[in-house]
Amino acid sequence: MAFMEALKRTAQDVEAVLEALLPLQGASAPRLVEAMRYAALGQGKRLRPFLVRESTRILGGDDAAALRVGAALEMVHCYSLVHDDLPAMDDDDLRRGRPTCHRAFDEATAILAGDALLTHAFLVLADPATHPDPAVRCALVARLSHDSGHEGMAGGQMLDLLAEHHATHDEAEVLAVQNLKTGALFRFACEAGAILAGAPEEDRERMRAYARDIGLAFQIADDILDVEATAEELGKATGKDAAAGKATFIDLYGLEGARARARDLVESAVSILAPYGDLADNLREAARFIIERRS
Amino acid sequence: MAFMEALKRTAQDVEAVLEALLPLQGASAPRLVEAMRYAALGQGKRLRPFLVRESTRILGGDDAAALRVGAALEMVHCYSLVHDDLPAMDDDDLRRGRPTCHRAFDEATAILAGDALLTHAFLVLADPATHPDPAVRCALVARLSHDSGHEGMAGGQMLDLLAEHHATHDEAEVLAVQNLKTGALFRFACEAGAILAGAPEEDRERMRAYARDIGLAFQIADDILDVEATAEELGKATGKDAAAGKATFIDLYGLEGARARARDLVESAVSILAPYGDLADNLREAARFIIERRS
Repeated sequence: MAFMEALKRTAQDVEAVLEALLPLQGASAPRLVEAMRYAALGQGKRLRPFLVRESTRILGGDDAAALRVGAALEMVHCYSLVHDDLPAMDDDDLRRGRPTCHRAFDEATAILAGDALLTHAFLVLADPATHPDPAVRCALVARLSHDSGHEGMAGGQMLDLLAEHHATHDEAEVLAVQNLKTGALFRFACEAGAILAGAPEEDRERMRAYARDIGLAFQIADDILDVEATAEELGKATGKDAAAGKATFIDLYGLEGARARARDLVESAVSILAPYGDLADNLREAARFIIERRS
Repeated sequence: MAFMEALKRTAQDVEAVLEALLPLQGASAPRLVEAMRYAALGQGKRLRPFLVRESTRILGGDDAAALRVGAALEMVHCYSLVHDDLPAMDDDDLRRGRPTCHRAFDEATAILAGDALLTHAFLVLADPATHPDPAVRCALVARLSHDSGHEGMAGGQMLDLLAEHHATHDEAEVLAVQNLKTGALFRFACEAGAILAGAPEEDRERMRAYARDIGLAFQIADDILDVEATAEELGKATGKDAAAGKATFIDLYGLEGARARARDLVESAVSILAPYGDLADNLREAARFIIERRS
């Protein structure tokens, strides 16, 4: 299956780029770089870098640039996991089947490793090696900082923490949290391709719309997995949302309703890609994969 | 005294810029923005923004641009204070005479507020409002991410944490920690003026050299204050370095030796500015102020 092979190849390619961007040799603070590497290397499906790469390819951008942007995005994603896992946040011991960063190192090192991964992502984007045009690099920096900051991912994590032990929930509230916490980085991933390729606004809007649909489908699938999958399959604790009193999409729609909603979103995402024909097959498969995955 | 007035005016001007860059109105996650504002507004001498502004003025750059860069730099400085104060790091209850961010809010909110301040700094730098030339904006992003990341401030904080309860210390080790932890942001502050003004490499190198001297003098003065000042004067706990078993510049040089070293550094910094004549008077006074302050 071409999609799974392409996903696997991207994971390998991103790994190589991350490895080169996070060298231990010559580090001023080796322990910090070890923790950054622990958090960023050797794991994950690299779905977000895959979306950067495919959106770039479809719109005619440069593949090496896409890999660097994907690596920067993955640094931001991994930093968010390290901080979300901290005792003061979700207090998780396991992530992708391994001890979380603060368990493998210590809390102070994990906080700093997250900070330094986030910081390094912007250095990678601002580097001329990412794109020859500084206007393109600035657009990437502005977009990623917006989408990962208080009006994006960090804002969503704040709302998610406040949602714990919250008596009432409505759909709008759960959607708003998801849209910031998970949705924002998916949107960046797909929009980055349009930015790298210098694509017109209509492509950019199409990529954002596709990302909105698959981002929401991804979160619904996560909620279903949290109920259905075993901790072994997920490599992290399950059933935590219910225990924390957080409203999930299953509370809103029921299990079958949530499945149906996720399927509808995938169909919508697939149809948005119609103008790109066969070129977008991998992105179509990615949308389906998002709700079919078991981890 | 012209210098103190200029410092005070910059504090007011930076406050206004930060206020505009961190609006509570319309925030997606109001509690997060409240914590960011708590950490960034209404306090501090704003010494780093002052250095940005003065280096920009001397080299002929735009003042409004310097204020925005100063505000971005202050966001990074304030994020580092919020994270350094966390229980897993220095575990401080007081900062500038007020409860630290995690005491005023909670640990999770403080971690996220730090993350979001750091992230927002890069959005401010990448914004066309900061400078019309995207190459200049990219240079600022690259420099600030380098100087605040694992090869700069975050790396220095890691080394500083590892230095606790460390049996032997030598001068090179203490200098290396200082150079990263405090020195890097001072270097960025002064170099930013050269970047904004498009100044030639010799000005850039001169600004870096001035910043190296005053950054080290600042840290020596901090160690002296930690021994001599009262907690009331400093608005934070004193004597913590000795209690933590960290080597300070007083361990290395003795109290009188440390004072003499700081004075020498200030004289060196002042002499570096000779080519700029009267224009650099405020930077000369800033160097003297750094070792004469009582907080």
